[in-house]
Amino acid sequence: MSIRGFEAKGAVLDEDVIIDCTDETHMEIVRAAVAGLDGVDVLLTADRTFEMHQGGKIEVKSRLPLRDRDDLSMAYTPGVARVCSAIAKEPELVHELTIKKNTVAIVTDGTAVLGLGDIGPAASLPVMEGKALLFKNFAGVDAFPVCIDTSSCATPQEKADAIVETVERIATVYGGVNLEDIAAPACFAIEERLRASLDIPVFHDDQHGTAVVTLAALMNALKIVDKQMGELKVVISGAGAAGVAIAKILMAAGVTEIVACDSRGVLDRSRTDLNDVKVAFAQLTNPHQVTGTLSDAMVGADVFIGVSARDVLTVEDIKSMKADPIVFAMANPDPEIRPELARAVSAIVATGRSDFPNQINNVLAFPGIFRGALDAGATTITEGMKVAAAHAIADAVDPAELTAESIVPSVFHPNVMELVATAVAEAAVADGVTRQR
Amino acid sequence: MSIRGFEAKGAVLDEDVIIDCTDETHMEIVRAAVAGLDGVDVLLTADRTFEMHQGGKIEVKSRLPLRDRDDLSMAYTPGVARVCSAIAKEPELVHELTIKKNTVAIVTDGTAVLGLGDIGPAASLPVMEGKALLFKNFAGVDAFPVCIDTSSCATPQEKADAIVETVERIATVYGGVNLEDIAAPACFAIEERLRASLDIPVFHDDQHGTAVVTLAALMNALKIVDKQMGELKVVISGAGAAGVAIAKILMAAGVTEIVACDSRGVLDRSRTDLNDVKVAFAQLTNPHQVTGTLSDAMVGADVFIGVSARDVLTVEDIKSMKADPIVFAMANPDPEIRPELARAVSAIVATGRSDFPNQINNVLAFPGIFRGALDAGATTITEGMKVAAAHAIADAVDPAELTAESIVPSVFHPNVMELVATAVAEAAVADGVTRQR
Repeated sequence: MSIRGFEAKGAVLDEDVIIDCTDETHMEIVRAAVAGLDGVDVLLTADRTFEMHQGGKIEVKSRLPLRDRDDLSMAYTPGVARVCSAIAKEPELVHELTIKKNTVAIVTDGTAVLGLGDIGPAASLPVMEGKALLFKNFAGVDAFPVCIDTSSCATPQEKADAIVETVERIATVYGGVNLEDIAAPACFAIEERLRASLDIPVFHDDQHGTAVVTLAALMNALKIVDKQMGELKVVISGAGAAGVAIAKILMAAGVTEIVACDSRGVLDRSRTDLNDVKVAFAQLTNPHQVTGTLSDAMVGADVFIGVSARDVLTVEDIKSMKADPIVFAMANPDPEIRPELARAVSAIVATGRSDFPNQINNVLAFPGIFRGALDAGATTITEGMKVAAAHAIADAVDPAELTAESIVPSVFHPNVMELVATAVAEAAVADGVTRQR
Repeated sequence: MSIRGFEAKGAVLDEDVIIDCTDETHMEIVRAAVAGLDGVDVLLTADRTFEMHQGGKIEVKSRLPLRDRDDLSMAYTPGVARVCSAIAKEPELVHELTIKKNTVAIVTDGTAVLGLGDIGPAASLPVMEGKALLFKNFAGVDAFPVCIDTSSCATPQEKADAIVETVERIATVYGGVNLEDIAAPACFAIEERLRASLDIPVFHDDQHGTAVVTLAALMNALKIVDKQMGELKVVISGAGAAGVAIAKILMAAGVTEIVACDSRGVLDRSRTDLNDVKVAFAQLTNPHQVTGTLSDAMVGADVFIGVSARDVLTVEDIKSMKADPIVFAMANPDPEIRPELARAVSAIVATGRSDFPNQINNVLAFPGIFRGALDAGATTITEGMKVAAAHAIADAVDPAELTAESIVPSVFHPNVMELVATAVAEAAVADGVTRQR
């Protein structure tokens, strides 16, 4: 806890006192304690987080001045008609003469928001606005929330159809689509269909952003423990959007032995309680057809990757791993094992939290990936572009500064976004997916 | 033509010379003439309008700083989760804690863009961006383009369904919907359906924006010629979106005798070539069941309102009107009659153009109308709110300065938007359409 925001000079303090609290209960305890002090009246308590959200976090601004009739006649009628006609005649010009060049849709249905689950499109909006902030601040990308209400749809299939259809209909304005916080398994089909139908990059950040940063972290972790991708046994806890995408990118990077678990244990081909995506996931992974619990799977593993739930991993589980265990416990806000417990028995520990070392944070990836894709005029995001992003993030950590507690760069690293953008743009060109101009 | 942008000090001029041209042909003539001058090399010619459109005219910016982990943890995870939870628990909070409070969707399918017609969603985007500029600059409203692609729809009905459905699905993010440049008759049903299904204001600017400013202009024109609404015979040329809306608002303001014409002549109940909307329009208007041409209708009229096509009105038509003819020839870019011809035989002439007196410009209405509606927490836009806006616009012209050449305020009038917003907000409260908080 810290106290800031005031200078006490006179007998009466009438300025704001800012107190950082851990949660709302704590806030109430502090308020009551301060109010109970002799001679103190609490005039007003405010919650800074709620205050900063008043009226939303983003705005739509002019990129040019509108001072007089002359400006008006170029930006609007009659001048704008010539620009419209040019695009009508040569449709590709929409990528040059409009916001499409630099604008990304942040698309959600609000079904898997943070750790909160299915809270719907309205309640998800603050997250999407926050995401737009990150896009702009870290990579100069203009992003706008598209929160889709599917409450009138009767079935999961109808909901997925509605999301796909809506994005297809409004895609004109956007140079890219960032899918966000859409629950598995719907998210997989939605992404696949949109990738097929749209001529702009479509990227489900919860899958691929997480996968890219996880791969980057693992690349650097292996340098420290001196192991190779091809020799690893990796256990993934969590068979949702992130788990599947992490498995796929690790396999593309050379990992051959992955065992995935959901809340009921190891995904093996004999299980009859799996949805289609998990069946496919079980086919893709688990080459030796291990069965049993997460603890069973952990025996002899080199790497644990958690994108599941709090406290599902034990110290005993880690002790059963091979030498130099690598533990990425990324459940948010509470990891699969408390980092201080994991650290005592692991070579390297990473989490999703900013208050521990080695934060696996998507913001290292998605702003630079879209920056690079937009700059290159990419029509899609390839595996090559994602792997290039992972390399760029890993390489942003100076080899001389690489330690078990710094396997990923800080999100405030001065040029990681630029490095990612450049690598991604080059990979787009190499993969031949740039728009012909 | 004017020449600006340089200081000629030395023998060689290597700065830009800005020359205002009337069109692209003129630009080429000027370029060739300059290039033909002795001792002059033209290094590069650029079109300022196209240059200013590079990369689009609007951007999405943070309303708050993102300097460090502390800011990040409030605007994004983990702090934002508390805001999401609050909205999930109390849905009305979305109007306070998100951009919904101040954000309007500019929705089009690109079927009736400026004078260009059906150019599709991509080519319409520069207009929608321009509209967003106007919203922000004149009223501080954040507006974002929603250009809907209905090319996969087979029938007009399917297209209308797709537009309605798309807007319903994405409406969560927006506090209002501005329909724009959607062709008649589809625009009428689309607006009606969205007004019924959404709990935020829906406003088709081509109808109601034009109607509000036309009513304002007519209010002031009548002060000059000393006539009353109830005694007027009004001829409307144009039975599209604007024509129908103008007729309705004039009738709400007390006009009883309106004769409407389309390109084939007077709308009367015997015509068999009319679509449903025009049939209804013919029922609503033409109380004496006049038949014939526009010229026939003009005989004995007090007011001509044109929202149709160039040069459909003649000097002879105006000469056949009652004393003190009022002529609003608003077809864009070329009016129903050349204003200099009309002025010679009319008491008052207005057009849609900025280079003649009395510009009937929607920008006098829509920014202030949405500002007022958002500020009041209005759930819809009522007739009362529109009429209040018209009064505010008319009253913005100081009675001492009211002349036949200044019946509407300039769009750069210092506080017309504020006057409109206040009047609209008050009318929303009076009409009982504000959100309960």
